Amino acid sequence: MSFDGPRPSMHHPLMIDDMLDGFEVVVTMPVAWGDMDAFQHVNNIVYFRYFEDARIAYFERTGIAGLSGRPCGIGPILASTSCQYKAPLLYPDEVRIGARVTSVGEHSFEMEYRIVSVAAHAIAAEGVGVVVAYDYDAERKATIPPAWRTALSSVEGCSF
Amino acid sequence: MSFDGPRPSMHHPLMIDDMLDGFEVVVTMPVAWGDMDAFQHVNNIVYFRYFEDARIAYFERTGIAGLSGRPCGIGPILASTSCQYKAPLLYPDEVRIGARVTSVGEHSFEMEYRIVSVAAHAIAAEGVGVVVAYDYDAERKATIPPAWRTALSSVEGCSF
Amino acid sequence: MSFDGPRPSMHHPLMIDDMLDGFEVVVTMPVAWGDMDAFQHVNNIVYFRYFEDARIAYFERTGIAGLSGRPCGIGPILASTSCQYKAPLLYPDEVRIGARVTSVGEHSFEMEYRIVSVAAHAIAAEGVGVVVAYDYDAERKATIPPAWRTALSSVEGCSF
Amino acid sequence: MSFDGPRPSMHHPLMIDDMLDGFEVVVTMPVAWGDMDAFQHVNNIVYFRYFEDARIAYFERTGIAGLSGRPCGIGPILASTSCQYKAPLLYPDEVRIGARVTSVGEHSFEMEYRIVSVAAHAIAAEGVGVVVAYDYDAERKATIPPAWRTALSSVEGCSF
Repeated sequence: MSFDGPRPSMHHPLMIDDMLDGFEVVVTMPVAWGDMDAFQHVNNIVYFRYFEDARIAYFERTGIAGLSGRPCGIGPILASTSCQYKAPLLYPDEVRIGARVTSVGEHSFEMEYRIVSVAAHAIAAEGVGVVVAYDYDAERKATIPPAWRTALSSVEGCSF
Repeated sequence: MSFDGPRPSMHHPLMIDDMLDGFEVVVTMPVAWGDMDAFQHVNNIVYFRYFEDARIAYFERTGIAGLSGRPCGIGPILASTSCQYKAPLLYPDEVRIGARVTSVGEHSFEMEYRIVSVAAHAIAAEGVGVVVAYDYDAERKATIPPAWRTALSSVEGCSF
Repeated sequence: MSFDGPRPSMHHPLMIDDMLDGFEVVVTMPVAWGDMDAFQHVNNIVYFRYFEDARIAYFERTGIAGLSGRPCGIGPILASTSCQYKAPLLYPDEVRIGARVTSVGEHSFEMEYRIVSVAAHAIAAEGVGVVVAYDYDAERKATIPPAWRTALSSVEGCSF
Repeated sequence: MSFDGPRPSMHHPLMIDDMLDGFEVVVTMPVAWGDMDAFQHVNNIVYFRYFEDARIAYFERTGIAGLSGRPCGIGPILASTSCQYKAPLLYPDEVRIGARVTSVGEHSFEMEYRIVSVAAHAIAAEGVGVVVAYDYDAERKATIPPAWRTALSSVEGCSF
């Protein structure tokens, strides 16, 4: 095979990062062969696992969730989430998953997720999640604690 | 604790069915203990597996997807999906998952999903999915085949 | 196709039960389409999920494990497990999974598992698991509590 | 707590590699938070996913399996597998999973797996798998192809 254009493998590594510009938290996961289903693509539910991987990393970075043990006190709970599938994922590949917070309300904040395929050099999916502050002892939603607001603002470089 | 109303265990079994009124395809799945995560509820991604269980049953009922082997020709592909979490799920329990088609466009149709917890006697989640007709050989979206339109109309008792 | 013998669909339903003769705890699980992998059979790790489903049911039946919340006190822990694959599983199908205890030692007991495919009317897998009594507070193995021995003997109809 | 010895974090990085000495194929996987179950450890079935990750990498390295598409011709099939759990795994962590072939028979070969926790700096599990040469067209076991024997010998540096 001969061709004159740049080879795919010569894409500048920063281009993957460019696709995740604005995402302050990014995690990397290898695509597992066993995550493909009978249609021979990564199964649709695995994309939500990738979103979770990035969401958990975001929670760690901001310290808003105790990740060891059963939740207690005020903690985050996922109220809704969605995914727009842009491209199939196949083994072997590696995905970079970005997460960011786009708005903070009285009881909840909204996150955006993006999955980038390193092999395809393309966005594989975009997603959204609404995370509610939940009082695990009283078993009802709570006001976003000021410490969360500060931590989220700090990561995103803005004032929520 | 004392109360005068009917006990939860005395709810009439038909009430579960009432919660799924209008869903023409309903599947039943036991909740697996191993599907709970460290927060001791069924993990958020498993709800999308439940949606898939009902979607696949819907595909079978209408015959719009060949489920054995790699897809070829015109087949359905999930373009986007979302879930609103209403109540946590715990082991032991059994879920009933309903699926229905609410609209059919030129290249896609929209589905609704509902998960009902038998133990909690409550709706655990609602979801939506957009399914696109995809030409697996040409690798691009296709027009909804007339046979699909007929089959979807037949199941839903309307004229899409 | 023509043949003189009995058709598979005419097998007497009890024959499935015969394949699970001697298993005091049996659970039933539908095969999920999404549990098939790119080789278009149920993925090898899902068989261990089936074993777990039966093991957890066994723990419930005997009351030897607190299944809600983080384990504390003396509880069972899986020390080793194995699976012999006898036949592939495909969607759609339903599996019956049997579990029994075959021996009880000073610190552990041994379980056997069997998975039967209802559609194939055949044993899909056999497995073994060693469960150790574990002191979750002291973080070391413990002596099998007399109450466990009694409960296991009672279910199996013998004297461990 | 006070102690005089070297701190765990000061272990030399090579020590992880030492724990995988003799394993010619090693893959690295981050531990996903969502792979923990209600007992707040990585669920027992995930260890078999880790084994699979390494087995698939081994198949790629030796070229003995076509990993894209439905299997055809002579391909490897997992006949049995087992796991001995040595230590719990928790998020956050990263595991290194080694795979090697220890013997080759007429129709099958035996593999060993080892999972090392980077955070715990310890072996988390050991496993074994028997892989059979399977004629996917004739649907029966086959003789190990000479090319497999050569490839396995080459990776392991011996003469099977």
